[in-house]
Amino acid sequence: MAGERFRVTLWNEHIHERRDESVTRIYPDGLHEAIASGLRRELGETVSIHSATLDEPEHGLTESVLSGTDVLTWWGHAAHDRVSDEVVNRVHARVMDGMGIVVLHSGHHSKIFRKLMGTTCDLRWRSDPGGEREVIWTVNPTHPIAAGVPQPIVIPHQEMYGEFFDIPTPDELVFISSFAGGEVFRSGCCFYRGAGRVFYFGPGDQEFPVYHQPEIQRVIANGVSWCRPLAPNDLPATRVANTPREWFST
Amino acid sequence: MAGERFRVTLWNEHIHERRDESVTRIYPDGLHEAIASGLRRELGETVSIHSATLDEPEHGLTESVLSGTDVLTWWGHAAHDRVSDEVVNRVHARVMDGMGIVVLHSGHHSKIFRKLMGTTCDLRWRSDPGGEREVIWTVNPTHPIAAGVPQPIVIPHQEMYGEFFDIPTPDELVFISSFAGGEVFRSGCCFYRGAGRVFYFGPGDQEFPVYHQPEIQRVIANGVSWCRPLAPNDLPATRVANTPREWFST
Amino acid sequence: MAGERFRVTLWNEHIHERRDESVTRIYPDGLHEAIASGLRRELGETVSIHSATLDEPEHGLTESVLSGTDVLTWWGHAAHDRVSDEVVNRVHARVMDGMGIVVLHSGHHSKIFRKLMGTTCDLRWRSDPGGEREVIWTVNPTHPIAAGVPQPIVIPHQEMYGEFFDIPTPDELVFISSFAGGEVFRSGCCFYRGAGRVFYFGPGDQEFPVYHQPEIQRVIANGVSWCRPLAPNDLPATRVANTPREWFST
Amino acid sequence: MAGERFRVTLWNEHIHERRDESVTRIYPDGLHEAIASGLRRELGETVSIHSATLDEPEHGLTESVLSGTDVLTWWGHAAHDRVSDEVVNRVHARVMDGMGIVVLHSGHHSKIFRKLMGTTCDLRWRSDPGGEREVIWTVNPTHPIAAGVPQPIVIPHQEMYGEFFDIPTPDELVFISSFAGGEVFRSGCCFYRGAGRVFYFGPGDQEFPVYHQPEIQRVIANGVSWCRPLAPNDLPATRVANTPREWFST
Repeated sequence: MAGERFRVTLWNEHIHERRDESVTRIYPDGLHEAIASGLRRELGETVSIHSATLDEPEHGLTESVLSGTDVLTWWGHAAHDRVSDEVVNRVHARVMDGMGIVVLHSGHHSKIFRKLMGTTCDLRWRSDPGGEREVIWTVNPTHPIAAGVPQPIVIPHQEMYGEFFDIPTPDELVFISSFAGGEVFRSGCCFYRGAGRVFYFGPGDQEFPVYHQPEIQRVIANGVSWCRPLAPNDLPATRVANTPREWFST
Repeated sequence: MAGERFRVTLWNEHIHERRDESVTRIYPDGLHEAIASGLRRELGETVSIHSATLDEPEHGLTESVLSGTDVLTWWGHAAHDRVSDEVVNRVHARVMDGMGIVVLHSGHHSKIFRKLMGTTCDLRWRSDPGGEREVIWTVNPTHPIAAGVPQPIVIPHQEMYGEFFDIPTPDELVFISSFAGGEVFRSGCCFYRGAGRVFYFGPGDQEFPVYHQPEIQRVIANGVSWCRPLAPNDLPATRVANTPREWFST
Repeated sequence: MAGERFRVTLWNEHIHERRDESVTRIYPDGLHEAIASGLRRELGETVSIHSATLDEPEHGLTESVLSGTDVLTWWGHAAHDRVSDEVVNRVHARVMDGMGIVVLHSGHHSKIFRKLMGTTCDLRWRSDPGGEREVIWTVNPTHPIAAGVPQPIVIPHQEMYGEFFDIPTPDELVFISSFAGGEVFRSGCCFYRGAGRVFYFGPGDQEFPVYHQPEIQRVIANGVSWCRPLAPNDLPATRVANTPREWFST
Repeated sequence: MAGERFRVTLWNEHIHERRDESVTRIYPDGLHEAIASGLRRELGETVSIHSATLDEPEHGLTESVLSGTDVLTWWGHAAHDRVSDEVVNRVHARVMDGMGIVVLHSGHHSKIFRKLMGTTCDLRWRSDPGGEREVIWTVNPTHPIAAGVPQPIVIPHQEMYGEFFDIPTPDELVFISSFAGGEVFRSGCCFYRGAGRVFYFGPGDQEFPVYHQPEIQRVIANGVSWCRPLAPNDLPATRVANTPREWFST
């Protein structure tokens, strides 16, 4: 794929930023714009970036948008239930065919993440207006998503997410966080599903400027790059499915 | 749980056995009765066995039946779509809470298995009236599901299921099969989902007497035993979720 | 194996307890005696417990002792280099044949653990006389080693062990710890090697009474139980190795 | 690393090719030359290739050669015991620091592979002069090592290697082979050890022209590329090890 730009679509529910003054102050153009600016700085010309939000027709995720998307990022919190099943199934089908997906923070409870995981994706959390210090540790130092990431990353104020986090065992565990309150969280998790790659990353909340923090932007850029589709060498054949004896030996 | 019997519900679509003469000859009382007889021989008094089929009200899987089930086995082929989403969701919720599930052969395309896996669960297969030899190899010799199982198991006539099998990487891979035609298949796969355990086992087809074969019955009995719920030590607490600072230190 | 006692050998370097007054006060009869007393309380009649120490001939780990051992626990710190390669190779061979091994705390740098892992087993640590609070979280709530273990376990004073911990990715990750200083550590890790099971558990230090703490004793008892050998169904055959064509079909 | 060539050292025992006429005919310049020619075709200018053999001083693997090597490939069969422990330890230390290693066929019993695995690496095999058909299946279609590889690869004549293969569970399983005799083998296995990557690939034997087969050369080239070191982001810090409280927050 050398030389070709890959295409990222940033999906954002985009409710808090328009409704809650405290959030508007931090993310006046939407969370997705902070994420986009990090991707532009880290990935430059190699990437073309679009966004899509809940209120657009088909949530901005039409067949045509998705077929033109290599990696989708997902942020949602207040309105998981308002995402239509049809769109969720469409996104899922694209992941099966190779589109990558980066699920952020409260996206753990989105329909698409739960559908990909097969579990409740429940977790422990703490409602605390000031947040608390999160320290993110790399436990897989040669993983591409950890490249150039400081050990550790410190987020001064963040909402606590803690174990038990009800996900399948990650295929690759990249980051584990601790919180000032003593909890731990598997905060950077990779999964392979169909021909697609899934990266879940815990940090980020509408009430804290986490997505403006350069180290966090670096992780998201690494995650997006890691999720880029590789051409699978057998899936189309598999879907033909019924194969005669000795089909491969002639 | 010593001393207590555990409760197994055998779910069978039960269509082929009543419709297709070739199948009736092999499984006059239904596939589930062959499976039950193996469980009785292998597990004896430690297990109580019930069955449920598609045509019963709520497919025989009412709340009350499921809450009284420790391990469910699932066989379906011709009518995956006729299983109601409500029942599928109910079964899924019980797996999240700890019920084990053993999915057999063509159950790979059942709604419940796909929901637990998050993938298409597509595979390569061969329509061949006489079937062909399947040889099943243990690649995890100390796994409880391989206990007392010969290396290898030979099934003289079986439908070919081959790679690529579109599942998440199994948490534990116990068996790999080869077929006379040269294909291979990950035929014994363990997954952990929520508080529940999932075992997928490839062998078994309505057209061949595979479920009468003692070694296959042994594997299914081992799988059922392995899937028995263990009391999880944190899930209820997690679902409370919002936890104050220092809640655990007083 | 119901009805049979299984045999545990507790290996302890046994230097600090005889040399350092601060340690003698906490473990007057040796660390291994604190561990033994926990095993007796948790496992009762099902287990027979022996101990072996560095200064005994062959470190107390003769062929005869090892062949009579189902699970070995290992604690060492000051004298890893004084353990003879011959004994290490003998222990390794027994693990390959099915003996379980529970490696504790500073045993991460023992010859036997490094030989089983294939890596340096280096980690981050902190020399701090008063220690600091360690909080141990279960991330695998249905794992047998987590059975009956509170979520979380709090150790008031403990030496910090932190990431990056240079081990292969655990086959099963049961516990993750946080420390007051903000570090995290994969503190409960399961590995399968040959026919044997390996459990590494981080807590425990000669300077703190960690092995007297009932929850820690519970984890060690669970770990010892989990490591019990299951009869492998193919290893002897594999070692014969050279196999004629169609050997299995007659 | 764009623009920089990476450096591959092909290690070959180089005994059979000089001693056994049947082998000389197939690999007159040594197995390593067949492997090199495949790498040159597949990787072109991006790679610089050297070779080293048993009979050279220090087996050709001096400190200086190894520090200049990004990826080492290993083929040995008749003389594993003649490889000195000092060189094995040196290779192992380089893998810990990030050098990749591709272990081929009978290299499963080499000292370096056993040291990296921590197990016996025993397997089932068959002595059969004509060999038999091996069919190699991709079970991980988006893995970089499977890129551009046909599904399946057929090797007309090859020595049988079968399960149980006594290795730790691979971190990534890419290929499974079947043999005409009915055996299966996990023939493409990835492991992460320290900062290094390890790829084991089963095919290849001195008696068959397997390393001249383009698809096999493609897999080896992919494996070499996959094993290239990525800069780890924490290992040097870890080795400093003793870290004061709050070291990261100032």
